[in-house]
Amino acid sequence: MKSYLDLIKECDAFPYPGTPEHNTLISTLWTLTTTSPNHADPIPVGYLLEPLAKKLIEALTATESKNDPSNPPTGTPEFEINTSTRTIKAFTQPTESLRSAAVAKILRTWGDHQTFSVLSGWRNELYPIYGPNNELLFTMERSASPLFGINTYGVHMTCYTPISDHEKTTSGSAFDFKLWIPRRSRTKQTYGGMLDNTVAGGISSGENPFESIIREADEEASLPSELVRANIQPKRTVSYIHVRTAAAGGETGLIMPEIQYIYDLELPNDFIPKIKDGEVEAFYCWTVEETIGHLVRGAFKPNCALCLVDFFMRRGVLTRVEEGEGQWEVMERGCHRILPFAVWAASGESES
Amino acid sequence: MKSYLDLIKECDAFPYPGTPEHNTLISTLWTLTTTSPNHADPIPVGYLLEPLAKKLIEALTATESKNDPSNPPTGTPEFEINTSTRTIKAFTQPTESLRSAAVAKILRTWGDHQTFSVLSGWRNELYPIYGPNNELLFTMERSASPLFGINTYGVHMTCYTPISDHEKTTSGSAFDFKLWIPRRSRTKQTYGGMLDNTVAGGISSGENPFESIIREADEEASLPSELVRANIQPKRTVSYIHVRTAAAGGETGLIMPEIQYIYDLELPNDFIPKIKDGEVEAFYCWTVEETIGHLVRGAFKPNCALCLVDFFMRRGVLTRVEEGEGQWEVMERGCHRILPFAVWAASGESES
Repeated sequence: MKSYLDLIKECDAFPYPGTPEHNTLISTLWTLTTTSPNHADPIPVGYLLEPLAKKLIEALTATESKNDPSNPPTGTPEFEINTSTRTIKAFTQPTESLRSAAVAKILRTWGDHQTFSVLSGWRNELYPIYGPNNELLFTMERSASPLFGINTYGVHMTCYTPISDHEKTTSGSAFDFKLWIPRRSRTKQTYGGMLDNTVAGGISSGENPFESIIREADEEASLPSELVRANIQPKRTVSYIHVRTAAAGGETGLIMPEIQYIYDLELPNDFIPKIKDGEVEAFYCWTVEETIGHLVRGAFKPNCALCLVDFFMRRGVLTRVEEGEGQWEVMERGCHRILPFAVWAASGESES
Repeated sequence: MKSYLDLIKECDAFPYPGTPEHNTLISTLWTLTTTSPNHADPIPVGYLLEPLAKKLIEALTATESKNDPSNPPTGTPEFEINTSTRTIKAFTQPTESLRSAAVAKILRTWGDHQTFSVLSGWRNELYPIYGPNNELLFTMERSASPLFGINTYGVHMTCYTPISDHEKTTSGSAFDFKLWIPRRSRTKQTYGGMLDNTVAGGISSGENPFESIIREADEEASLPSELVRANIQPKRTVSYIHVRTAAAGGETGLIMPEIQYIYDLELPNDFIPKIKDGEVEAFYCWTVEETIGHLVRGAFKPNCALCLVDFFMRRGVLTRVEEGEGQWEVMERGCHRILPFAVWAASGESES
């Protein structure tokens, strides 16, 4: 069995500063930094594994050496490599669009040459990288984000529905609601067949969390926009640093700091979410206890397990007293980790 | 949440020899010993808490001093108290019926005087105490057994039923069966409202485990004798040493070594256990996952939780690989504890 803390740690798997594990891992990683007109110092934006760092240095060097008379050097090097601090400063072009174009050019080459396995899942969808003043530094093809260890942003919504008195009696549940839980398509490359949150997705560049959840709610569960808008409850974000495992497909060990905008939604008793886009195999309507049984058996995708534990902590299914003060604090910390890179503050979000 | 090991430890709560906790606890306990014609040495039969030991010494002394000319002393003292080894040798009369009568006489007095709270649950049912050669040493009113810390014997049966293909799809369960789980009457003094094994009960003196489970199956779940006899699967016993908590009602801290004869029974899909004797409030038919959810929330009576974990270990719901070798061994040990007093070997029992 997996404890709630085990589940959180499987998702928030990157070791914490001050531990020997952190020191060891950090000594093997490179940091990608960039610059912004508003900042004197380089801005760290991602953790790179050694193979990526090598390929990136190769690519940056090749681009530089190919500078021809029609595109004369500006005198400012566009990248700097520091092998003692294991830092690569790159994508320092003066505008966001130039920086994004430089990233895109390298990624297109890698994609064409099948340099990295994760790029075989090319999405044609851009993820944003933000700086400390909430400025967009550059964008990057979604499937490449784990390679660069950048912060990514998503939305997760848990839908629940009141349990009828009759159902409560026959099910023997101690709680007043049931949960709508989807199973991912078994043919999905990442976490195929695992359980998921009712609605979840990534936030693309230019999209805000609320628009994103409305769109995903329709695409993944056929939830009408009016119904969602009228009843959605925005909650505190969750954040963690995942370390990619084989279950996700592609390269393992990639560092994935993630921020999820969290929403709860109470659905009417007679409303049934429906499959729409083939990402979902089935929707189950489970009591809290049935959901916990699947959870502790490890049947949920890791970051969905973390969001569900957060939901249970917020909803009083788990309590500080029962879990124990110390355990609770560690669970809280793992669900709301302070990330090493600047975090976007999306506008128009507030906790209900 | 409670882990499977937490659940086992809540039931098998008596510390293990070699630990500081064991040394501390043992230093506060008294041991009751008795004699048998077949044994030169006194036979230890139970652990007594200090208050019981004091009352027992009082009672034994009073009985002795009341010996009158019509009942002359035999020359052999009927009890011995050793305050350095904290041992009381008692009930040494030459025959089982004399020994049992001596116990009964003391218990009747205590019952009349409300000396101990657990005796308010007087059952008029005798529990057997066996010696190392499987001989019946004496019997004792059931409700008094925790006071004397003697081994007691019971039966536990888990009934399950095949899950239909349709149910498996709609429930999303990973297992091929569902379980029949009763909730104890909320008005029951001991563990009221908690979840239980499908059928469970104590084995009285003169009864064997198989007769006992057949009787209880009828009384508690309206399971016809022919159905049970045709399909019952006897399994390895479980054994543990429980320490009585407030949830059981009455005095706390009492030591309860228990041996449960374990049975599994597959019920036909269309058979529904029915309440008969008012001990049960409801029967639920749960998927494995739903059962696990209630289990880890601590909703089961402690020894039923242990029996259920044993069932899951036997049925491959839990596996050595997933739980981890070390953890598994500790779980096994707690479910099949070696008890400090002689254990009855019931006849006619075999594991299928």
